[in-house]
Amino acid sequence: MLDDVLEQVRSGALSVEEAKARLAAFEDLGFAKVDHQRSKRQGFPEIVYGEGKTADHIISIACALQARGSSVLVTRVDKEKAETVLRACPDYSYHEAARVLYWKKEQMPADDSQGYVAVIAAGTSDLRVAEEAAVTAEVLGSTVHRIYDVGVAGIHRLFSHLEEIQQATVSVVVAGMEGALPSVVGGLVSHPVIAVPTSVGYGAHFQGLSALLTMLNSCASGISVVNIDNGFGGGYNAALIHQLVHRGGTRI
Amino acid sequence: MLDDVLEQVRSGALSVEEAKARLAAFEDLGFAKVDHQRSKRQGFPEIVYGEGKTADHIISIACALQARGSSVLVTRVDKEKAETVLRACPDYSYHEAARVLYWKKEQMPADDSQGYVAVIAAGTSDLRVAEEAAVTAEVLGSTVHRIYDVGVAGIHRLFSHLEEIQQATVSVVVAGMEGALPSVVGGLVSHPVIAVPTSVGYGAHFQGLSALLTMLNSCASGISVVNIDNGFGGGYNAALIHQLVHRGGTRI
Amino acid sequence: MLDDVLEQVRSGALSVEEAKARLAAFEDLGFAKVDHQRSKRQGFPEIVYGEGKTADHIISIACALQARGSSVLVTRVDKEKAETVLRACPDYSYHEAARVLYWKKEQMPADDSQGYVAVIAAGTSDLRVAEEAAVTAEVLGSTVHRIYDVGVAGIHRLFSHLEEIQQATVSVVVAGMEGALPSVVGGLVSHPVIAVPTSVGYGAHFQGLSALLTMLNSCASGISVVNIDNGFGGGYNAALIHQLVHRGGTRI
Amino acid sequence: MLDDVLEQVRSGALSVEEAKARLAAFEDLGFAKVDHQRSKRQGFPEIVYGEGKTADHIISIACALQARGSSVLVTRVDKEKAETVLRACPDYSYHEAARVLYWKKEQMPADDSQGYVAVIAAGTSDLRVAEEAAVTAEVLGSTVHRIYDVGVAGIHRLFSHLEEIQQATVSVVVAGMEGALPSVVGGLVSHPVIAVPTSVGYGAHFQGLSALLTMLNSCASGISVVNIDNGFGGGYNAALIHQLVHRGGTRI
Amino acid sequence: MLDDVLEQVRSGALSVEEAKARLAAFEDLGFAKVDHQRSKRQGFPEIVYGEGKTADHIISIACALQARGSSVLVTRVDKEKAETVLRACPDYSYHEAARVLYWKKEQMPADDSQGYVAVIAAGTSDLRVAEEAAVTAEVLGSTVHRIYDVGVAGIHRLFSHLEEIQQATVSVVVAGMEGALPSVVGGLVSHPVIAVPTSVGYGAHFQGLSALLTMLNSCASGISVVNIDNGFGGGYNAALIHQLVHRGGTRI
Amino acid sequence: MLDDVLEQVRSGALSVEEAKARLAAFEDLGFAKVDHQRSKRQGFPEIVYGEGKTADHIISIACALQARGSSVLVTRVDKEKAETVLRACPDYSYHEAARVLYWKKEQMPADDSQGYVAVIAAGTSDLRVAEEAAVTAEVLGSTVHRIYDVGVAGIHRLFSHLEEIQQATVSVVVAGMEGALPSVVGGLVSHPVIAVPTSVGYGAHFQGLSALLTMLNSCASGISVVNIDNGFGGGYNAALIHQLVHRGGTRI
Amino acid sequence: MLDDVLEQVRSGALSVEEAKARLAAFEDLGFAKVDHQRSKRQGFPEIVYGEGKTADHIISIACALQARGSSVLVTRVDKEKAETVLRACPDYSYHEAARVLYWKKEQMPADDSQGYVAVIAAGTSDLRVAEEAAVTAEVLGSTVHRIYDVGVAGIHRLFSHLEEIQQATVSVVVAGMEGALPSVVGGLVSHPVIAVPTSVGYGAHFQGLSALLTMLNSCASGISVVNIDNGFGGGYNAALIHQLVHRGGTRI
Amino acid sequence: MLDDVLEQVRSGALSVEEAKARLAAFEDLGFAKVDHQRSKRQGFPEIVYGEGKTADHIISIACALQARGSSVLVTRVDKEKAETVLRACPDYSYHEAARVLYWKKEQMPADDSQGYVAVIAAGTSDLRVAEEAAVTAEVLGSTVHRIYDVGVAGIHRLFSHLEEIQQATVSVVVAGMEGALPSVVGGLVSHPVIAVPTSVGYGAHFQGLSALLTMLNSCASGISVVNIDNGFGGGYNAALIHQLVHRGGTRI
Repeated sequence: MLDDVLEQVRSGALSVEEAKARLAAFEDLGFAKVDHQRSKRQGFPEIVYGEGKTADHIISIACALQARGSSVLVTRVDKEKAETVLRACPDYSYHEAARVLYWKKEQMPADDSQGYVAVIAAGTSDLRVAEEAAVTAEVLGSTVHRIYDVGVAGIHRLFSHLEEIQQATVSVVVAGMEGALPSVVGGLVSHPVIAVPTSVGYGAHFQGLSALLTMLNSCASGISVVNIDNGFGGGYNAALIHQLVHRGGTRI
Repeated sequence: MLDDVLEQVRSGALSVEEAKARLAAFEDLGFAKVDHQRSKRQGFPEIVYGEGKTADHIISIACALQARGSSVLVTRVDKEKAETVLRACPDYSYHEAARVLYWKKEQMPADDSQGYVAVIAAGTSDLRVAEEAAVTAEVLGSTVHRIYDVGVAGIHRLFSHLEEIQQATVSVVVAGMEGALPSVVGGLVSHPVIAVPTSVGYGAHFQGLSALLTMLNSCASGISVVNIDNGFGGGYNAALIHQLVHRGGTRI
Repeated sequence: MLDDVLEQVRSGALSVEEAKARLAAFEDLGFAKVDHQRSKRQGFPEIVYGEGKTADHIISIACALQARGSSVLVTRVDKEKAETVLRACPDYSYHEAARVLYWKKEQMPADDSQGYVAVIAAGTSDLRVAEEAAVTAEVLGSTVHRIYDVGVAGIHRLFSHLEEIQQATVSVVVAGMEGALPSVVGGLVSHPVIAVPTSVGYGAHFQGLSALLTMLNSCASGISVVNIDNGFGGGYNAALIHQLVHRGGTRI
Repeated sequence: MLDDVLEQVRSGALSVEEAKARLAAFEDLGFAKVDHQRSKRQGFPEIVYGEGKTADHIISIACALQARGSSVLVTRVDKEKAETVLRACPDYSYHEAARVLYWKKEQMPADDSQGYVAVIAAGTSDLRVAEEAAVTAEVLGSTVHRIYDVGVAGIHRLFSHLEEIQQATVSVVVAGMEGALPSVVGGLVSHPVIAVPTSVGYGAHFQGLSALLTMLNSCASGISVVNIDNGFGGGYNAALIHQLVHRGGTRI
Repeated sequence: MLDDVLEQVRSGALSVEEAKARLAAFEDLGFAKVDHQRSKRQGFPEIVYGEGKTADHIISIACALQARGSSVLVTRVDKEKAETVLRACPDYSYHEAARVLYWKKEQMPADDSQGYVAVIAAGTSDLRVAEEAAVTAEVLGSTVHRIYDVGVAGIHRLFSHLEEIQQATVSVVVAGMEGALPSVVGGLVSHPVIAVPTSVGYGAHFQGLSALLTMLNSCASGISVVNIDNGFGGGYNAALIHQLVHRGGTRI
Repeated sequence: MLDDVLEQVRSGALSVEEAKARLAAFEDLGFAKVDHQRSKRQGFPEIVYGEGKTADHIISIACALQARGSSVLVTRVDKEKAETVLRACPDYSYHEAARVLYWKKEQMPADDSQGYVAVIAAGTSDLRVAEEAAVTAEVLGSTVHRIYDVGVAGIHRLFSHLEEIQQATVSVVVAGMEGALPSVVGGLVSHPVIAVPTSVGYGAHFQGLSALLTMLNSCASGISVVNIDNGFGGGYNAALIHQLVHRGGTRI
Repeated sequence: MLDDVLEQVRSGALSVEEAKARLAAFEDLGFAKVDHQRSKRQGFPEIVYGEGKTADHIISIACALQARGSSVLVTRVDKEKAETVLRACPDYSYHEAARVLYWKKEQMPADDSQGYVAVIAAGTSDLRVAEEAAVTAEVLGSTVHRIYDVGVAGIHRLFSHLEEIQQATVSVVVAGMEGALPSVVGGLVSHPVIAVPTSVGYGAHFQGLSALLTMLNSCASGISVVNIDNGFGGGYNAALIHQLVHRGGTRI
Repeated sequence: MLDDVLEQVRSGALSVEEAKARLAAFEDLGFAKVDHQRSKRQGFPEIVYGEGKTADHIISIACALQARGSSVLVTRVDKEKAETVLRACPDYSYHEAARVLYWKKEQMPADDSQGYVAVIAAGTSDLRVAEEAAVTAEVLGSTVHRIYDVGVAGIHRLFSHLEEIQQATVSVVVAGMEGALPSVVGGLVSHPVIAVPTSVGYGAHFQGLSALLTMLNSCASGISVVNIDNGFGGGYNAALIHQLVHRGGTRI
């Protein structure tokens, strides 16, 4: 493209001022193309981190993005704040357990023809984080299977879902307490596992540090880890992999 | 398959004893199919963790696996031990920087037609871990582009490789010291990033803890993390994703 | 007993001096009876912690105890030191993997009629600690079943030993890395589980801290934990419980 | 049982469909028998972790379990929530200090003929955790002796209970602050000691970490440890051992 | 000066009493001159740490200092307390985001002719700390350029301010989460960088420890670090350097 | 400059190819000018981190840089390696205590006319780190005053150097053990203090963590901190500030 | 005494029952004499830890002890609770800053003839802990000199109290933030220094851990340390030493 | 004294130069008198920290101090280095277990008439640290009673020394592992206890951190703590208190 611009300057087809504007855009593109063009190319929504933002702040961002026609995902929004936003932006949906607020231009896929993401959670106290992962992946365009309450202390519950787990394209495994579930799942599947430690635990759990260390030290090979309680990160990574896979290698 | 077995028992085609053997295999299959059939289906080699094993121990495992026709990757083998193994198993190759010993049935791909894994390293002291990641991914069947010495303290070096990085299917980013490189890369690409902290650092680095925490706390969205110095884990995860993607969603 | 002594003083059957000696013994008994009478009553050997002691030091203790007719267990003795001791005390036996040196008056039981202790280990690198537990329990008089290399990343291996594990009186579960095995075992059995974390691991494993935290945070109910690499503690606790149980509640 | 099913298929006594149903049950049994049959066989109640559950949630679980005739223990229930539950489930009992809610089919034993569990606590601030241990053991069917306020800084108080402690089948020792009590008790008894660190302490106590480390590092041999403030775990382990012992080795 | 005093005593120009008073002042000067004379010499205001002080306490200090004609900076004052102080001391100004209350005798410089301090912040949640740094530097007499929301995960935003950053005399770089921004800035400028970690983060961020370690481990050379959330310290150090520089080496 | 290039293209003074080369340089300049032009403009030498590099590696870098006429500072070089390098590069100098190898084009200043950096060390065991700081500052062109063995436990030694310390342009304060020296110095001077914690200490010193925390928590205002044992960082920051100051605000 | 009892039994002067009671008392004495006789012998009051106790609980203890004629010190009592107690026990005194409630039989000494304890505090935020130390020492019978607000960042303030500090029998030095004051004091005096770290600090202070480590690592010789915020412990230790000294070696 | 000097200047008895020299000495005295006059007044030897010093370095210091007639204590000297020093300084004595080298002008006291310091150690592995404490106290002029191998896991051994411990003027209690011994001793005596944690331990002992935390959290009142393995500090503090006491309050 640089050739083109210079050639047009040389030929007089572009003025110096016009060329400068073009090159500025070009230069910017080097770093910025990901940001500005990503959602257009891949249907990925804009992500807004809601914690610490007021309802008014969220409303103004949400409206602006919706007006641009871009899908939007707002994470970590509590119920009260969400209701205020919904009154102002009635097209948005709110998922209470996941504390996620979103607006999607297109319909979400309802079947497994493109494969699916398995979101697996150890205990009922991990559900908030697991739902954040699941809804994130759905808003990003993936089909999700939820497989909950299958912790390692009652491992037969996990095995009754074995085939469903093994058929997934990628798994997000959410666990607090001892955080051992990703290791067990990782030994049973041949697809990537994103492990999400939660801060659910008592005593020497240290707000999730114990579960985090467990997951980092897993003996199973295909496991990588995101931050404590980072359900969004788990869902985002899973959706990213899932969609790369099912577009057959076509760049998102 | 259970139907078949029972039907054959009913019809007398199978004796009770034969049926029991079949069902044992079937039951076992529930858990074990991953292990025993994974390499056959996906061409993934057997992984042997070499640290703490004697040369003799490695030789006997290596020969047995090679005899079964399965590719083999032995990690964390120092040079002296490797030379002993190579005298006994002359078909094996050794990669000194990566401390990896391997034997592959088939040729590794030499071109980028199937996409590639980018292995990116911050400093020269991170190379041992980066090479472990790169060679692991190669032995697992992926093409790898190495982009080294591009740490954030001289960020123009990273930008001179920007396009090559953005074109990869997946990146492994290896960094010690402050461990900031994955955050920067994660903000520039739209594919998954596997972050590998290294124990390279001084003073308040605490054997890699500092870099690990940095990566877990990254603001960029598509990043997940493996254990400190776990180059193998980085390469394994990257190859797993890369091959899922380039087989167009076909189950590995 | 105090009554008796005083009564005898009153009646003149004991002199004041004799009474003082008796009462001294009695008073001492309050604290000391455990120490001096425990091995006599229960056949438990004397325990000597070998680390940091010279061969000569061990020899002099070992001879003295053997002369008193009491069984002896010396832990943490490396091979070279053991060989020196064995030359001086030829009746002793040495178990190299467990680094344990011992002498037993009576024969160890060879069958399961009194139940058994299951010593379960996750990986081959945990064997040193597992053997320390197993040999400790054996020298203390328990029959032991060893079930090794059944880590959670290949959980079908564990299930092929399920019945043997469930039939044990008590289990010692030894694991490094993510340390998840005790949780899985604890969910499958209805007997007490003693969990032993090992310092086997890499990166963010922190010399066994990760495995220790995992075990303390286990969701399974009947699990208690001993110190990192404390195979002796695991075996001692298990033998203590096992023998209490199989003597039918008779005080050891 | 597998033989029987196959034989009946062979003989035509079972259809293929019927055989499949039977085998599914059988297969499930491999993992699940512990869960479904444990309480039936041993009279152990169902355990419900109450923290984070609403009163309504507890009520519905409590009723269902009571209806099945199974004893129930709900831990970590504060007073207000307990009162709501008690209005709905009037057969339940609530123990305020232990924050435990329970329903037992059968009467608890009131004498020591089957031995007893000693629950020993260092200070008055440790009582909440100690009572959780004591009530748990009682609801699980054990007789409990409470020996409180016997911390090591006034060790003569401990000694005035020495015989009562030494006669127990198993001890639960609860301590915060420096956490030294289990070491002292462990040196005075010949039965298993379950140590429970509490988060009671100030300054460099770090929410119980100090007491936890003390207990893990104890020089006394027969000690194992559960998580900080885990009174339930202490009581559960003690009752498990106590009942194994006093049923004379009969499998619970 | 000692010479002078003694000479005057010798000559009778000073009495012994007068000499003692002078020498006392002199001796005191050895330590105290910094304290009492610093603000006079350099126009630096008195610093009052407001946290934990009541409004009344602040009012009495503020009035006293203003009466002495010395500029005053009170840090960590919340809005409510500030309003009470402002009613009593109407000449003071309050900066809400920075939580800083101050009174300046002289006008603050409004242009860049003396160079400027760049205060650079990674995310919007770091603004409170960044404003504390910026206002501190301004009250201390420096011109400040604020460059906010330029975190490393969208690094093109940083580059659009590159020249402004490179032209500063000194930079204060404020970042939470992974804390990587100072490393990137440090690699792009040739002036000193004061790094301020913030406690903004989630999960394994540990109240700013993660960002602190990142900054201490930076590969870039001209970086030094102050305590977590210590915006005041960042602004103070920057103003100190800035003014030393622009007074051309004249001692402040 | 972009205007110029485009204007020349328009006028035909530059071909498209020539313009592309110019713009490439320009674009690169955005990030890279610091790196490539810094030493030219400011006389700062190239910095090479010597730890982990072989003598041969250092020789090749050292020769190349010297050939380019740029001064060179190689840190963390032990004596043996240094001697090998000195045989190959005889113009280099080696400072054994500081473990620093360097070559300077121009003479170092020998007087205080431009002010000086004070390098202050608490104990004799901190000297290695202090010398690394001092020699670094000297090679970078600053005059250095060394004030050693003035730890806070004998604070009169510090006061006998008070005036020399107060006259410095900037101080580097190096301390291990309790690390309290920077706080005391910071309260006595009105210039910036760079604090360098050392790993010198015993017991609960944790390889310098104790001294690091002390320095970060200092009550004195003008203190910033570099990593544990990072004498180079201390010297570099001090020289950077010193030279900014004494060039009277002229950009280095 | 044992001789006497037995002799009297022998002679019939004591019955067996009477002898048993005497010996029980005697045996108890072995451990208990400290507790029951200490306050009688040394005039030390009974210590009650008030935190976590209700006003009613404190009232009943306070009355009982006062009735026994023993002085009483109740620590950690907040104002509201204290007022309730004072209404019931009007002879008690309350010290609000120290949060200490006490009753003393005898007058406290008002002069320095028996020496004094110096309680030295770094900052105004450390006063609560310092007052707890000072009032504790006073209630225990020592004269106390308070020397406050003499932190190391303005060390001339400390020196203006130097002689008063050096003349004390023992010092309690209370400091938060960097915790450096005990080191400086320890280097200036030749009497024992009890260091009390406080939890006063910000950022990387970690609730007093930083100050605690500083004090443990002090280079000065005569320093020992108590727990974070443990003003009581500081005052108790100081009073204990002070009174041992000024009774001229007579056992307290 | 200042009056005198000034008066003599006034009267001409002193020249200005002479007065300056006197005042310099006087000024210095303010801080330094402790250092220079302490050993003269109290017979305390000079302390030299031997670790990290060469034999030659120690020899030159040792000779110089001996020549000045001052007693000398050199700590942390290994055997080989000590032998070299002893050849050069034959009057010195070396204590191998304590790794202490010393020379005393006067005889050490051999009886208990002045009271004694009790040095109490938990296990045989703590002896090195205990001996460092004991020999330090002896060289400083105190009589020492050694009471070793009395750990809490066999507490009757401690009680057999109860009276000897209770009669001491001050105790140093040395313990590794769980570090519980000072709490028990502290509850049995009415004199000050200096607790010394040792790095003796395994697994979750963390080089003495566990024992250190235990001691800081002790429930017993008269305990203060020195750094891990700091036997010298324990002995120094004990001797300081012991001698203050037995000189009847006369300033040392």
